[in-house]
Amino acid sequence: MPRPEKHVFVCTQSRPAGHPRGSCGEKGCREVWEAFLDEMEQRQLFDKIAITNTGCLGPCSVGANVLVYPEGVMYGKVTAADVAEIFESHLVGDAPVTRLQLPAEVWG
Amino acid sequence: MPRPEKHVFVCTQSRPAGHPRGSCGEKGCREVWEAFLDEMEQRQLFDKIAITNTGCLGPCSVGANVLVYPEGVMYGKVTAADVAEIFESHLVGDAPVTRLQLPAEVWG
Repeated sequence: MPRPEKHVFVCTQSRPAGHPRGSCGEKGCREVWEAFLDEMEQRQLFDKIAITNTGCLGPCSVGANVLVYPEGVMYGKVTAADVAEIFESHLVGDAPVTRLQLPAEVWG
Repeated sequence: MPRPEKHVFVCTQSRPAGHPRGSCGEKGCREVWEAFLDEMEQRQLFDKIAITNTGCLGPCSVGANVLVYPEGVMYGKVTAADVAEIFESHLVGDAPVTRLQLPAEVWG
């Protein structure tokens, strides 16, 4: 496999209901993950973009979290409805979706 | 949380025995993951280094796989015994452990 130009990490961590930190699992992360897989399937960019599911990325309170390397852009409160825009603007167009980026005091 | 200088992604994917691609799960990835957590606990570098467990990173046949961003260095056949060296040389010293890096035809 080629080294990807963009590598997307999608938190798919669930925690039991009532856990003090909550989790991306209760904020729709499974749907976000599925939406990324669907976009990949449609666009067939397997030579340029990689998508990986992860455990906890840290900022659980503002999940669902998605992290893009090599630039290290962390997105928060991502929903499945945001995925096409992240794909088109950031992964293909190299322009991060600023409205979803976590502020510097959370990840910066 | 600060944006990490190094972000380590450790595959912790298991698959059923006999699966054609195998998995890092049958190659000691859980012990690798635990070893990274232990090193973090000892060194307390939480402001500079992040460690995240992941699903499949791709090169299952040469697992256990560990991937370090932002540089995108992919390691293969990592064992728990290698973790201190990866930590000291690469994560702290910024010198990747070349003997464990996957060759360009696999990841490059």
